[in-house]
Amino acid sequence: MATKAIFYHAGCTVCVEAEQNVARALDSNRYSVEVVDLGQQKSRIREAEEAGVKSVPALVLDGLPFHINYGAGLDALK
Amino acid sequence: MATKAIFYHAGCTVCVEAEQNVARALDSNRYSVEVVDLGQQKSRIREAEEAGVKSVPALVLDGLPFHINYGAGLDALK
Repeated sequence: MATKAIFYHAGCTVCVEAEQNVARALDSNRYSVEVVDLGQQKSRIREAEEAGVKSVPALVLDGLPFHINYGAGLDALK
Repeated sequence: MATKAIFYHAGCTVCVEAEQNVARALDSNRYSVEVVDLGQQKSRIREAEEAGVKSVPALVLDGLPFHINYGAGLDALK
């Protein structure tokens, strides 16, 4: 069964590059990747914070947050 | 044919976590991942810098650098 991976972004250039490269490079047989735009879905900012996400783009894999480069801090999205 | 991806690290805890999660989550049918410990292989620091790597852990995918969380700056490894 595929493990859920969540890629949080905010539509910025850095985010798009990370999504098109890192998020899409994951093994789809093992990971089911959900892409969440926190700029659009502000209701999910809390969930991202609870997973330890401090900035976007970030990938939450097996419950651990991995910040990929730096686009924007979560506070800028609130 | 698999594209080469290079994961640069320096043996730190942040690096090991990123390697065991992000680097190993890549689709091995599409990416052949080489893991380089810059703490041990200082001769490859220049190559990493030329790819745009500023800190470890970092993943270079299709020639683009993606910094994953933050372990150490490259200058600290010289």
